[in-house]
Amino acid sequence: MFVSDCLSVNEKGHLTIGGYDTVSLAQEFSTPLFVMDEEKIRKTCRMYQNSLNTYYQGRGMVLYASKAFSCKEMCRIIAEEGLGLDVVSGGELYTALQAGFPTERIHFHGNNKTEEELIFALEHDVGHFVVDNLTELETLDRLAAGQNKTANISLRIKPGIEAHTHEAVMTGQIDSKFGFALETGEAMEAVNFATRFRHVNLKGMHNHIGSQIFDIEPFQNAAKIMLEFMHQIRQEIGIVIEELNLGGGFGIKYVESDTPVPYGDYMKEISQVVYDTCEKLKFPVPYILMEPGRSIVGEAGITLYRVGGIKEIPNIRTYVSVDGGMTDNPRYALYQSPYSVVVANKASQPAAKKVTIAGKCCESGDLIQEHTMIQEVEVGDTLAVLSTGAYHYSMASHYNRICKPAVVMIRDSEPRVIIKRETYADLIRNDL
Amino acid sequence: MFVSDCLSVNEKGHLTIGGYDTVSLAQEFSTPLFVMDEEKIRKTCRMYQNSLNTYYQGRGMVLYASKAFSCKEMCRIIAEEGLGLDVVSGGELYTALQAGFPTERIHFHGNNKTEEELIFALEHDVGHFVVDNLTELETLDRLAAGQNKTANISLRIKPGIEAHTHEAVMTGQIDSKFGFALETGEAMEAVNFATRFRHVNLKGMHNHIGSQIFDIEPFQNAAKIMLEFMHQIRQEIGIVIEELNLGGGFGIKYVESDTPVPYGDYMKEISQVVYDTCEKLKFPVPYILMEPGRSIVGEAGITLYRVGGIKEIPNIRTYVSVDGGMTDNPRYALYQSPYSVVVANKASQPAAKKVTIAGKCCESGDLIQEHTMIQEVEVGDTLAVLSTGAYHYSMASHYNRICKPAVVMIRDSEPRVIIKRETYADLIRNDL
Repeated sequence: MFVSDCLSVNEKGHLTIGGYDTVSLAQEFSTPLFVMDEEKIRKTCRMYQNSLNTYYQGRGMVLYASKAFSCKEMCRIIAEEGLGLDVVSGGELYTALQAGFPTERIHFHGNNKTEEELIFALEHDVGHFVVDNLTELETLDRLAAGQNKTANISLRIKPGIEAHTHEAVMTGQIDSKFGFALETGEAMEAVNFATRFRHVNLKGMHNHIGSQIFDIEPFQNAAKIMLEFMHQIRQEIGIVIEELNLGGGFGIKYVESDTPVPYGDYMKEISQVVYDTCEKLKFPVPYILMEPGRSIVGEAGITLYRVGGIKEIPNIRTYVSVDGGMTDNPRYALYQSPYSVVVANKASQPAAKKVTIAGKCCESGDLIQEHTMIQEVEVGDTLAVLSTGAYHYSMASHYNRICKPAVVMIRDSEPRVIIKRETYADLIRNDL
Repeated sequence: MFVSDCLSVNEKGHLTIGGYDTVSLAQEFSTPLFVMDEEKIRKTCRMYQNSLNTYYQGRGMVLYASKAFSCKEMCRIIAEEGLGLDVVSGGELYTALQAGFPTERIHFHGNNKTEEELIFALEHDVGHFVVDNLTELETLDRLAAGQNKTANISLRIKPGIEAHTHEAVMTGQIDSKFGFALETGEAMEAVNFATRFRHVNLKGMHNHIGSQIFDIEPFQNAAKIMLEFMHQIRQEIGIVIEELNLGGGFGIKYVESDTPVPYGDYMKEISQVVYDTCEKLKFPVPYILMEPGRSIVGEAGITLYRVGGIKEIPNIRTYVSVDGGMTDNPRYALYQSPYSVVVANKASQPAAKKVTIAGKCCESGDLIQEHTMIQEVEVGDTLAVLSTGAYHYSMASHYNRICKPAVVMIRDSEPRVIIKRETYADLIRNDL
């Protein structure tokens, strides 16, 4: 009925998430409010793990890309599910450490890790560094030497693939700020470099072709290209790279017309390509890693708002103003991303009204969705924007000095706050 | 030499702001760092005040639009300069109150003020409410009655003017989430409504046509339209509106090709239009208000970064990675806004290299400027992005759990921290 199977409608005609009435949530915890369904998150984690077991004999690890949604409780859930964690900054690493996440399962990403971040990660024995460029490689070797350690690394490779997605989230093509290009010889040069350093241990190759991708084919092509490169490394340099990180980017359902590939199918097809290519090249089947972020938390989350005003502009459009906006959901302003919107207290009614959902920021671009169909709406209604579990809390800003919403997690039909709502005092904590 | 007159080059060939060496600032306070010149801010405030005195007999008030950059110290400076303050949220109001800003000089804006915000503002006797819609008008009257108070208000009017600027910051046209439309009769209906309520005192009319505008003409047209509306109100309803708020939106110099109107010229021309129109309509010359934000702080601020990596992609482009990004400057990702970039430690050298400045976020769209000319650049250089005093700190996010930079203010060639750098502990303060 809705874009996510954790959503339903109860006997009152109210939208539910994880079986809990969203209208009650808005009343209990106030709005704007992020709500997430823990069971949905855990189910998706297990589905990824199971498909790895089924189709690849379990010879791999799923890393949750925490940039999608990072907080202590999320790290705890991922740790309990036995997944690894992909962090992209000292702040995400710090969050994981504070949650007691096992450091050997942490992979540290980023196109411009600072020395402070690398030192911090080495001090805490982070399991793996995904090295982006030669400057980082040299710096990491030097800093690891300083701590008398050896860092496990992989190299981020641009396989030269253009996935069909928004330009701002495409990463596999040669014109990207991320990684080493294959076709220019830069990648092979980096491998050569890496083998000469004594305090890095070159374990793997990494690639990531983009975000919110709905096809299997670009992933298959990327896997093939990466394996051919690993074969070439063995031939030219004589070393066997043991790990292949295939990145993330699996699309989720924001609106009905989105058609994500079932993740099991993806795993099945990719496994087949890896097995076939390895057989053809007589290359030992690698340990594989995957980095889903959005697909683990995206559909598990919604945002609840209160409608504060409705402005009908005859023959033009109807603006429905809510008590959040681009501060908690910058994705429409940034990427004109589509969303499904539901009047939570009238969720069983037909969506018969075309509206534009506006935020409360002093910025015309502060819209959450334009020309979208929702139920008949009045001031005081609770509005739910769906599939907001990924890249919403994590991208939130303090524009207009608006406080960040709380995040509530539902488990066994019981809600609990996992991130407290910000207060005015929080906003000025660092003002002198 | 640079886009702002608070910038120069010293004998070492380093960029200076307010006479202080930016390379020393980067070393002393670390990067990324926001730096602002207090003299430039105060000079601009005085220039606005003086032009109001010169051309309009001082019969008005300049309100600083604090959404451009709000913090306690900024509120103190504005208070000392005798300006009023425009706030758009409870958070901005709270900041002003904590800084001891005189509440009678505060104007409260917003298209969707919550009841909590209105109550908070009434409790603190905020001087003026700019009412956006009928729901707000009714709510404000009810809440003011509850506190046995009368709120001074103006109505936000859409004059039906399209200024030449980016769509996301255009606000004067009829298709806007802000205010009451003139041509549909909605504005006159709102005036009628307002006169019937006993706990609001209708003092003024407000309009704002957009942001970063370089012409005087749309402002002149808007002033004329607003006065004609005030004349019409007198004729139809028999009341004389005493105040006219002409909004803000005055453009600043981001790059050399930007040609802002000298603010004095603007004031001169607008005053003339107001005097002439009032004479023609036999309408009493109103008290006027203006709301500059960007033009008060924009050119007074810069951002300093450290270059962490350089990636030359043959025949395509050169990426220069810095230790900040869309987290501290979302305006390029949002609006493809142009900026001037300078290698601060080589500021006297020619800008002979075309580069793309990339941030450190895991997002391809995380760029600060594409294909821009800068000095020859190396890892370890200090990069300065100019005219970042407005809508940078205020729009900053925690994406990738990156800490917000510190803000340093220069006065009498001495730097002092006015907003402390965030720590990792700050990031997880609300995580449970």
